[in-house]
Amino acid sequence: MADDKIPVGILGATGAVGQRFVQLLARHPWFEIAALAASERSAGQRYADACKWVIPGDPPPAVGDTVVQPLTPNLPAKLVFSALPSDVAREVEPQFARAGYAVCTNAAPHRAVDDVPLLIPEVNADHLSLIAAQRAVWPGLIVASPNCTITGVALPLKPLDVAFDVRKVFLTSMQAISGAGYPGVASLDILDNVIPYIPGEEEKFAQELGKLLGRVVDGRGVPADIVLSAHANRVPVFDGHTVSLSVGFARPASVADVSAVLRDFRGDEIARGLPSAPEHPLITRSEPDRPQPRRDRDAAGGMAISVGRIRPCPLLDIRMTTVSHNTLRGAASGAILNAELLVATGHVMRK
Amino acid sequence: MADDKIPVGILGATGAVGQRFVQLLARHPWFEIAALAASERSAGQRYADACKWVIPGDPPPAVGDTVVQPLTPNLPAKLVFSALPSDVAREVEPQFARAGYAVCTNAAPHRAVDDVPLLIPEVNADHLSLIAAQRAVWPGLIVASPNCTITGVALPLKPLDVAFDVRKVFLTSMQAISGAGYPGVASLDILDNVIPYIPGEEEKFAQELGKLLGRVVDGRGVPADIVLSAHANRVPVFDGHTVSLSVGFARPASVADVSAVLRDFRGDEIARGLPSAPEHPLITRSEPDRPQPRRDRDAAGGMAISVGRIRPCPLLDIRMTTVSHNTLRGAASGAILNAELLVATGHVMRK
Amino acid sequence: MADDKIPVGILGATGAVGQRFVQLLARHPWFEIAALAASERSAGQRYADACKWVIPGDPPPAVGDTVVQPLTPNLPAKLVFSALPSDVAREVEPQFARAGYAVCTNAAPHRAVDDVPLLIPEVNADHLSLIAAQRAVWPGLIVASPNCTITGVALPLKPLDVAFDVRKVFLTSMQAISGAGYPGVASLDILDNVIPYIPGEEEKFAQELGKLLGRVVDGRGVPADIVLSAHANRVPVFDGHTVSLSVGFARPASVADVSAVLRDFRGDEIARGLPSAPEHPLITRSEPDRPQPRRDRDAAGGMAISVGRIRPCPLLDIRMTTVSHNTLRGAASGAILNAELLVATGHVMRK
Amino acid sequence: MADDKIPVGILGATGAVGQRFVQLLARHPWFEIAALAASERSAGQRYADACKWVIPGDPPPAVGDTVVQPLTPNLPAKLVFSALPSDVAREVEPQFARAGYAVCTNAAPHRAVDDVPLLIPEVNADHLSLIAAQRAVWPGLIVASPNCTITGVALPLKPLDVAFDVRKVFLTSMQAISGAGYPGVASLDILDNVIPYIPGEEEKFAQELGKLLGRVVDGRGVPADIVLSAHANRVPVFDGHTVSLSVGFARPASVADVSAVLRDFRGDEIARGLPSAPEHPLITRSEPDRPQPRRDRDAAGGMAISVGRIRPCPLLDIRMTTVSHNTLRGAASGAILNAELLVATGHVMRK
Repeated sequence: MADDKIPVGILGATGAVGQRFVQLLARHPWFEIAALAASERSAGQRYADACKWVIPGDPPPAVGDTVVQPLTPNLPAKLVFSALPSDVAREVEPQFARAGYAVCTNAAPHRAVDDVPLLIPEVNADHLSLIAAQRAVWPGLIVASPNCTITGVALPLKPLDVAFDVRKVFLTSMQAISGAGYPGVASLDILDNVIPYIPGEEEKFAQELGKLLGRVVDGRGVPADIVLSAHANRVPVFDGHTVSLSVGFARPASVADVSAVLRDFRGDEIARGLPSAPEHPLITRSEPDRPQPRRDRDAAGGMAISVGRIRPCPLLDIRMTTVSHNTLRGAASGAILNAELLVATGHVMRK
Repeated sequence: MADDKIPVGILGATGAVGQRFVQLLARHPWFEIAALAASERSAGQRYADACKWVIPGDPPPAVGDTVVQPLTPNLPAKLVFSALPSDVAREVEPQFARAGYAVCTNAAPHRAVDDVPLLIPEVNADHLSLIAAQRAVWPGLIVASPNCTITGVALPLKPLDVAFDVRKVFLTSMQAISGAGYPGVASLDILDNVIPYIPGEEEKFAQELGKLLGRVVDGRGVPADIVLSAHANRVPVFDGHTVSLSVGFARPASVADVSAVLRDFRGDEIARGLPSAPEHPLITRSEPDRPQPRRDRDAAGGMAISVGRIRPCPLLDIRMTTVSHNTLRGAASGAILNAELLVATGHVMRK
Repeated sequence: MADDKIPVGILGATGAVGQRFVQLLARHPWFEIAALAASERSAGQRYADACKWVIPGDPPPAVGDTVVQPLTPNLPAKLVFSALPSDVAREVEPQFARAGYAVCTNAAPHRAVDDVPLLIPEVNADHLSLIAAQRAVWPGLIVASPNCTITGVALPLKPLDVAFDVRKVFLTSMQAISGAGYPGVASLDILDNVIPYIPGEEEKFAQELGKLLGRVVDGRGVPADIVLSAHANRVPVFDGHTVSLSVGFARPASVADVSAVLRDFRGDEIARGLPSAPEHPLITRSEPDRPQPRRDRDAAGGMAISVGRIRPCPLLDIRMTTVSHNTLRGAASGAILNAELLVATGHVMRK
Repeated sequence: MADDKIPVGILGATGAVGQRFVQLLARHPWFEIAALAASERSAGQRYADACKWVIPGDPPPAVGDTVVQPLTPNLPAKLVFSALPSDVAREVEPQFARAGYAVCTNAAPHRAVDDVPLLIPEVNADHLSLIAAQRAVWPGLIVASPNCTITGVALPLKPLDVAFDVRKVFLTSMQAISGAGYPGVASLDILDNVIPYIPGEEEKFAQELGKLLGRVVDGRGVPADIVLSAHANRVPVFDGHTVSLSVGFARPASVADVSAVLRDFRGDEIARGLPSAPEHPLITRSEPDRPQPRRDRDAAGGMAISVGRIRPCPLLDIRMTTVSHNTLRGAASGAILNAELLVATGHVMRK
């Protein structure tokens, strides 16, 4: 292992999101995979045997012979990425934080916990200050990535909130099948079909958007005062969540204003230049029929949100459409970007 | 031809919607196909030769040898169904009305014309009174079917408007590819994709919903005062338009109230019992994940709108999801139902 | 229950094929559903509660309140249809035969058993004579429906075998997702993809085709002497198996000869006129690009096999393409047709 | 323009394959785009205006302002890539050859011409000797890329032919929609469907495979003596042609033999090390259900053919499945690889 790389572990390494972590971290400039951990069913096996590889491409050759570890906090790593299912994450992630690990989780259970930053570096890097409260409880830390759909909404809403004060949001999501993991959605349910329901999703949208755009006051998070109405749908698209979005502001905002603010957004200073950060977190499209998930999900390596069809809304102020890559920016790459921020801010030391 | 059937013609008989008319009218209890007409390119050929059949099933054997007529108003019929493209419909339909034909059109050009009823029998059969004004212009008449998406929205909104006074509508459509005709949407554009734009569609929604739910006062149409914000999307679904819908009312309405009103809706008295009218124009679903286009589009032979996920809306009053069959209720069958209403109301005579 | 209908049971009534049985038998002229049986997990519940309905349409209202029975052979029926998974079918079906029931199974385990007729009424109704040997073992009987893909191949090959003596078959199947049951194929595996493998399928093709086209000699089945090479693929099609087929004969056969033989085929005399039997079991298509699964799977209510692209084969004699409906002719409807044959031949008594 | 890059032109630059050329050549180490040419409809416009970009990603920024040239042979380039439609290619390509250009064409018209090498560098680089005969006719040259499907078949068959002498080939293709260009296949024709016919395709397979595996004797091509029976199908897959393949040899070949030969194949010495040449032109897969188009089409940047399911064939010798990327290896990248070979062999000079 190169001297200057930080050893990391992946919890839930055999699932679909875990595979993405493996794929992305195998060539990361700062991190090096030091441990793959998974449930008892897989632990003790070679990774190549334990894991049915379901994402495009092949597993990195280097990890095939790695023996999968159990989910116990004695991995040779400082930082772990969690791709665990919710019920397991709820138990296991605090065990790792208690044992001193920095946990960057993609799982839902701790997103709503007060002291856990729900983090998108370009949006709310300052929420890292919530970690101070965790230090009273354990030597490690947990930071959470938001829901994959709300990630693609919070990024464009952040600069609009700063500029015009977002008050009301209507959103209809058309979410890709990869958001449900593997095996996930049965083909008999989604081929030639739309499923107008994703359990728990609409509630998460409201809560997580409020936390993401909220402030930290006296060490405590104060959610933003936004009313959100959501319709979550699953559509037969492989990767890439599309959102039809109407937004109401407290202050006047023309289409030109909104377009300019989105186009100029670079995100929090501290987030710029991180290895996984795109130069432009938002890409505005001027074609009448863009963004589209198949054509735009891979923008900036799957890290940029594409925004288009910016036009007035008869009910609120502005309508637009966004597309984000749900398993990259919305899952594995997003958590890695969070980890990079932890390093850049000294929450995880290189040595 | 049976003595007691009304001879009808189909304008634009070779296209996808024209084929649906042929298929449905070949076994209709009141109507009998007496003429198939199409553009010069097809006129003079046998129907079987002029027409590449693209809808499921085979063409009715009886029509295969029928010679396609040109689009001139000398067809052996009293009533014609128009499946013409917009630019042709704009020219040809008035010619038929002027020549004394009753024209039931599925095309868009005359929908917005004041004296042309934009008609869904269960919703606004009383708008037929607008025909009186046409009599001053020509001996025939034109009645129009609405846009396929708005048909599936106006039907559930009608009883809600009567009960609670609809004021605001937010809708996101996820429309099937068959709505764009043949060849229509390129597979390279829609496989594994969503297209967040359908030219002119969002504007039609607002205008047509207002007209459909409006009233006729002193022989003139007065549109309903509803503000609508729409996001129109194309999704990789064959048939069946899905709509995520939020509605705001002038009067209080609980989820239970709304469900009961939808469940009890039967439509205008005059529309009940027409051959193509479903017993229940609305079907309310209580499963959390319904309606879905593949599973619900064929409800009541494609004539019923399925409504589900009725729940409160944080911004307006009620959220719900609707599914309607866009080429049956939303196109050919809808126009046939209109024609049945014309017969039932004496606007077209059996003899 | 109507006096003149035969009470039947459905084993495995809650799965996807079981649901098809329920849907089809709810309106059958000879049979009436008297019992729904399923595994312990479902037994004792109302059918509407035990069963997540996954096929198009709604469950017949009449069965919703029926209490699901366990899989024990004391159902109020003479004849049972089995849609059981293989491992359960292997145990349960003989128990029913031993208890005197006629079992029409769609499951695979007993297809290869010598004394069990593998039956397609139009192809080999005479194989019913194998039942005589079962009588020595139990008072009931088992007849099996073949694999869904081979059903669509054996039907066209039967008349060709009679006319020209089939010797060699090369086939590539492109099978619909519904053939794998529910939840079956993960959408992440099949959207925008082909899976070139279906476990055990290619072996079944060879064995079952031999048995279907074989003869019964002295009460024992003698398989046909056909060499078959198969490539089984799964494609993103909902219903309808497509097969690319090359056939070699012992006797000369031109394209015209083959077309004529296929067109004229009506099947065994005894099979004609059964309620579920199509007038023409084979439909030959002359368009260059037919048959296609979406456009042809529902031919004759899903009971006819469509055959087209009949042309010479550079290696064998004839190439062609076939499409069959895998969950109707190839599963539930096929088993019901077998049951009708049992009644017509006196193996199951009306009284 | 960098001094050491070879200026190239793209004929038919605005179509789907033309766009791929633009995308790939914008970052090529040896070539630099010096001219974009297209039909009169586009000529004179900025490329960004003339071209509706349909492939994933965005057009390279540098070409947006390039003015599209007409298809006349006075472009500032030595070498042109042709993505022209067949009828145009038939006229225009010889004009360019006559004017001294090296033409690397992806179009079909000249593939069958005796003196035009039909070229896959790893398979038959020696066929370049056919160019000598062209020199008698014009100062330029034409080399053609094969049909996209047969490219993916000829590559694995080449080493098998060398080792075991290929005599008979059965193949069923399941071809991606991108093979038909844009707009190409209507979504109403292919969603939830298979189209068992692609005009002219089966005939091309036989002729082109013979030419590719043939020899050049005394300056003339002698086709290989292979009998091929083909079934060409279109399936709802975006990119990546899948082929079910049975092969018969003159010499004995076990599954292990075949696997070893495929695994060890590197292609003609001269082709190795070209910028677009994959290190391993063939990738053998040992999983039972691979290769699959979505998971394997991008192997080696879309340049490697994946081969799997190698098993005995009851009729011929060996069955297998192949997947190739039809618009990269099978179109634009394949033609670029041919151009690289022209440079490496001195047919096109760097200066």
